[in-house]
Amino acid sequence: MDTSPAVGQHSLREQNLAVVAREIFAAHTPPSRAEVATATGLTRATVSALVDRLIESHIVAELAPTHSRRAGRPAVPLVPASATLVGIGLEINVDYLSGTVLDLTGATLASITAPGDFHASDPARTLRLLGDLTADLLAHVRRAGAAPRIAGVRLALPGLVESQTSTLRTAPNLGWADLSPLDTSAIAAHVDGAPITLANEANLAALAQLSRLRTDDSTPDSFLYVSADVGIGAAIVLDRGLFLGGRGWSGELGHVVVDPAGPACSCGATGCLEQYAGTDALLRAARLPRGSTIADLVDAVSDCDAAAVAALDRAGHALGAALADFVNLIDVPTILLGGAYSELADLLEQVVLTELTTRVLAARWSTFAVHRAPVGTGAATIGGARQALADVVSDPTPWLAAPRPPG
Amino acid sequence: MDTSPAVGQHSLREQNLAVVAREIFAAHTPPSRAEVATATGLTRATVSALVDRLIESHIVAELAPTHSRRAGRPAVPLVPASATLVGIGLEINVDYLSGTVLDLTGATLASITAPGDFHASDPARTLRLLGDLTADLLAHVRRAGAAPRIAGVRLALPGLVESQTSTLRTAPNLGWADLSPLDTSAIAAHVDGAPITLANEANLAALAQLSRLRTDDSTPDSFLYVSADVGIGAAIVLDRGLFLGGRGWSGELGHVVVDPAGPACSCGATGCLEQYAGTDALLRAARLPRGSTIADLVDAVSDCDAAAVAALDRAGHALGAALADFVNLIDVPTILLGGAYSELADLLEQVVLTELTTRVLAARWSTFAVHRAPVGTGAATIGGARQALADVVSDPTPWLAAPRPPG
Repeated sequence: MDTSPAVGQHSLREQNLAVVAREIFAAHTPPSRAEVATATGLTRATVSALVDRLIESHIVAELAPTHSRRAGRPAVPLVPASATLVGIGLEINVDYLSGTVLDLTGATLASITAPGDFHASDPARTLRLLGDLTADLLAHVRRAGAAPRIAGVRLALPGLVESQTSTLRTAPNLGWADLSPLDTSAIAAHVDGAPITLANEANLAALAQLSRLRTDDSTPDSFLYVSADVGIGAAIVLDRGLFLGGRGWSGELGHVVVDPAGPACSCGATGCLEQYAGTDALLRAARLPRGSTIADLVDAVSDCDAAAVAALDRAGHALGAALADFVNLIDVPTILLGGAYSELADLLEQVVLTELTTRVLAARWSTFAVHRAPVGTGAATIGGARQALADVVSDPTPWLAAPRPPG
Repeated sequence: MDTSPAVGQHSLREQNLAVVAREIFAAHTPPSRAEVATATGLTRATVSALVDRLIESHIVAELAPTHSRRAGRPAVPLVPASATLVGIGLEINVDYLSGTVLDLTGATLASITAPGDFHASDPARTLRLLGDLTADLLAHVRRAGAAPRIAGVRLALPGLVESQTSTLRTAPNLGWADLSPLDTSAIAAHVDGAPITLANEANLAALAQLSRLRTDDSTPDSFLYVSADVGIGAAIVLDRGLFLGGRGWSGELGHVVVDPAGPACSCGATGCLEQYAGTDALLRAARLPRGSTIADLVDAVSDCDAAAVAALDRAGHALGAALADFVNLIDVPTILLGGAYSELADLLEQVVLTELTTRVLAARWSTFAVHRAPVGTGAATIGGARQALADVVSDPTPWLAAPRPPG
């Protein structure tokens, strides 16, 4: 018998490895080798060999054996390995830089958010600062005793991204345009050659909601995730998957027209939603002192400050009208409010529901839900790190340790 | 050997029948039995037996044999059968009733459009009129010598439809609401017990565009089809399939907000697109005499009538802004203008493109297309009749003639 693997056998083994990994990573309770064999339909011997490779490669780990009531060998529960392989999610937004390191168990090994002012910022300087933040993240991880391999890096940006060409087309509130490719060498210097992939911030943040939602069966499979900051992005989730549109540029909720005769927007148009309901517009309309935050706005509203109440009301009606457009066009009645709206969700819910009820043609036969997104701070970096790790689970082969020499 | 078909064999035969039918109906040039066998991977004997059943059942027909250059029996090209099985598409709209009968070849056997005023109409009386129109359609078909079986009937309505329960939730411009189920007995009386299925008018009309688009490779696989009348519906087509949304209620473009402070809409909200760019709103703003048509508006515009020019300009900007919302949210840059916009497409194209170019965040990296829809008059009835016939091709088994007694 010829034991050198043919191409077909090789790719079959890769597929089986992915099937086994998925079974272990998706399980609600840690499965044994026998349970993985039953669930996948693979033979016990095949599963054992593949699991051994995943354990040698520090992708899967074994828990202490448990004795079942039946006779026989104790079962060894299999779990994702801890602190061995990590995903890094990074984010550049208008008023902060942020990063999160997650391991295969989903545990956060490090997380940093550094406030700053990146309106009309210099891309090279900003990316150097983000590179420094990345170095700090990894130094933190190493100080805690881990020396993980880096599966991949996702860089979340508030704008139109072409992931495959590493291009940022436009991020109007950063003042960045046509960076093709965006030079990420300041980050690459710190991540051991791991691939750095650009993505839209709202899309990655929506993925973070989705993984959290999983544990709660009452949450819907389809929703619009709204991510507010100076700009307002959104991501459309249908049946637990991102709906990206033709080129991945769906969900530009911030540029839905509220009033064509309204104020000029950074995008070049007029009357866009973010000129009413973005954080800069909100704070300006509330006439709060320069440097105020959304928390200050919440305080002013609870103090019944007239300008703050009026600003929030105006923003809520504008947001509700834009969301009604979304629901009229897409017929998905569930909205999760994230980013800066995390702090405002309770204050916005009623006025948004009023607009939806008035403006959606199907309102009488619909149950609208407008909620705070379950993952607030750092959602885009969490979603990004998870996405990088999902690549390992869907194809573990590149992450296998060198095979042991035949004994 | 037991020759009685097991359930598995039975459903396998149904599947193979559908595979063979699809191959014959989708072919660009009529295939022979041998070519169907090659394309489907089924044996020549299986294909021949299935094709014979389709021919006996008047679903497929044979053309005259063609002699190929190679030796052997001449090939018999297989084509959809003509005038044997038909689909009926019917439509109720605010200012007309309409119906089309198509056969499996796609040929129109009869088509009638009857103008009328169905604003705030009585559903029972309107459906009786549509029943009479259906009887006229079939009388026309029979006078032409055909006595076809009816595969199915689709009834297009300008509103929110639940097909499975035969319910019309609302058609605001007809003034119809909560007809659950809609009583279609006045139509059923004429269609030999064929199933009558309700659907949204824009969705069926978009399907008609799609089948026409097929012959032209330059046309896109994804587009928004806009269907204007008194109201404005739309259908989202992604990769040649309808994107229906959660409950089939996507595409309510007519209720996208143009100006929250704008005029009251029949839906109960204010400032909806159809109050600017629906046909009633357009003709009213153009100050044309009562009873004027879109053709009269086109004449007035070409005569440089100031009110007509201003009305069309206002409608075009409103439509363009609403379409920019759509493109910002869904990232599909191709728009087909149908219904009453068929006549206005040339006049609207530039102003709509201007709004898209100004308001879509991705405009600089996008190529927008705004065109007249290829199928204008009767699009919803053509799409409906095609959809009813598509059911025959995707599952021919219920339409098979009784098997011949064993000889």
